[in-house]
Amino acid sequence: MSKQDTHYANLRRKHRENAKKSGTYAQPDNQPPEGRVWLYGLHTADAALANPERTVRAMWVSENARAKLEAEQLERATFPIETVHPKEIDRKLGGDAVHQGVLIEADLLQTNTLEDCWDTDLLLVLDQVTDPHNVGAIIRSAVAMGAGAVISTTRHSPGESGILAKVASGGLEHIKYVTVRNLANAIQAINERGYHTVGLDSEGAADLAQTVRNTKTALVLGAEGKGLRQKTRQMVADLARLDMPGPIKSLNVSNAAALALYIARMSR
Amino acid sequence: MSKQDTHYANLRRKHRENAKKSGTYAQPDNQPPEGRVWLYGLHTADAALANPERTVRAMWVSENARAKLEAEQLERATFPIETVHPKEIDRKLGGDAVHQGVLIEADLLQTNTLEDCWDTDLLLVLDQVTDPHNVGAIIRSAVAMGAGAVISTTRHSPGESGILAKVASGGLEHIKYVTVRNLANAIQAINERGYHTVGLDSEGAADLAQTVRNTKTALVLGAEGKGLRQKTRQMVADLARLDMPGPIKSLNVSNAAALALYIARMSR
Repeated sequence: MSKQDTHYANLRRKHRENAKKSGTYAQPDNQPPEGRVWLYGLHTADAALANPERTVRAMWVSENARAKLEAEQLERATFPIETVHPKEIDRKLGGDAVHQGVLIEADLLQTNTLEDCWDTDLLLVLDQVTDPHNVGAIIRSAVAMGAGAVISTTRHSPGESGILAKVASGGLEHIKYVTVRNLANAIQAINERGYHTVGLDSEGAADLAQTVRNTKTALVLGAEGKGLRQKTRQMVADLARLDMPGPIKSLNVSNAAALALYIARMSR
Repeated sequence: MSKQDTHYANLRRKHRENAKKSGTYAQPDNQPPEGRVWLYGLHTADAALANPERTVRAMWVSENARAKLEAEQLERATFPIETVHPKEIDRKLGGDAVHQGVLIEADLLQTNTLEDCWDTDLLLVLDQVTDPHNVGAIIRSAVAMGAGAVISTTRHSPGESGILAKVASGGLEHIKYVTVRNLANAIQAINERGYHTVGLDSEGAADLAQTVRNTKTALVLGAEGKGLRQKTRQMVADLARLDMPGPIKSLNVSNAAALALYIARMSR
């Protein structure tokens, strides 16, 4: 786990612990039912409502927020929509969720497998990047750069959650987010499907821009500090660096992902 | 302020409030003295110790952390170094700072003005990006991409702080972080010094890669959601888009900054 990951994880843990002990602010009074997720924030809600793959079960919205959402989507809604005071949403989510007055309860997205990912020419693979803020920002960038799937490990990666969806700013509705038990096996399968797999690694033989080819590509990134695991390094076709001219040679993992995706995209 | 900014700001505010009310975890028992900053984390501490412009006044370090820091720098130290239990650092900083067992008290860096910035061919200008996590990540990327200064507004921007330095991961010691009262006047001065000023804006006439020139460049970015202020748009020589092929057309502000800096750097 990166230091940045640790920082946020610690911050949230302490926050939860304090909240539990003090009872001084709105507590999440419950969790979404099994198999469902609470989605919040205007961009995230709009994207969920527009996604035909997303089954929405209920919606709570403030009058203010309602005016900002896509009216057409609300008119077509077949699920209950309750107009509420924002504090009611605080009470459900806990006081630290920036929900902008809108909360949706929806089914988790259909689980995709690796076999569903072969219709894209750009894949992003994450080797144990744990923090949902980083992974959310990465999903957003992956969608922006036209990647078709983000593939992560089942363990040591964040599941589909409200915070992941919120930071992805609607991106989760536009991409396949796939988790696999064994990343080395997954990279082998990706290799066999004709993707050029490139791991980002400061020890890489060449700069990424000189390494990517005009072909189907899968970029593989590890967590800050820890980097790619040994087994992951062995499975990718190439290791590449992100060369930087300045005195600091590393980026935050989501910034590195944005840059790598852009470079891969530019090779077409 | 972006939604992301708001999210973290709210999270931290609630966290502080709860901590104050509950008294259940280590509280920052004091602030650094006027004119000083508390720097923590291994990368941040190493960079501060290596920076001849940084006057360090005192250091608290755990035995574990001490073994990980650059030994030579510690041997040359002319300030008191106290070996402590990590909990003592918790007590100073509050329990949510990921200090990795090292805390430095140092003077704030010498304040730079715009006049100190003309020795670089790449400037980054921020128009009211408020969240220290975003600005910290941007400073890190700016240093990595060889920008010489990050210029921000005096108001609505984070000052030099422990969290800014921590997220910048040592970057703050390698760059001029300049705040100006009037950003429009600053951009005018930058124009007059022969920099090509380019504002990032979704309404820009062309893509950034087609807009940047092989000359001294200043990139100008606004906060997510809010974007560049009207006056800022009027002052830059060009407005440019970051074209993205995917269904989501915007990035987290630090990801956008990393990409813009890379594109500007590639135009050389």
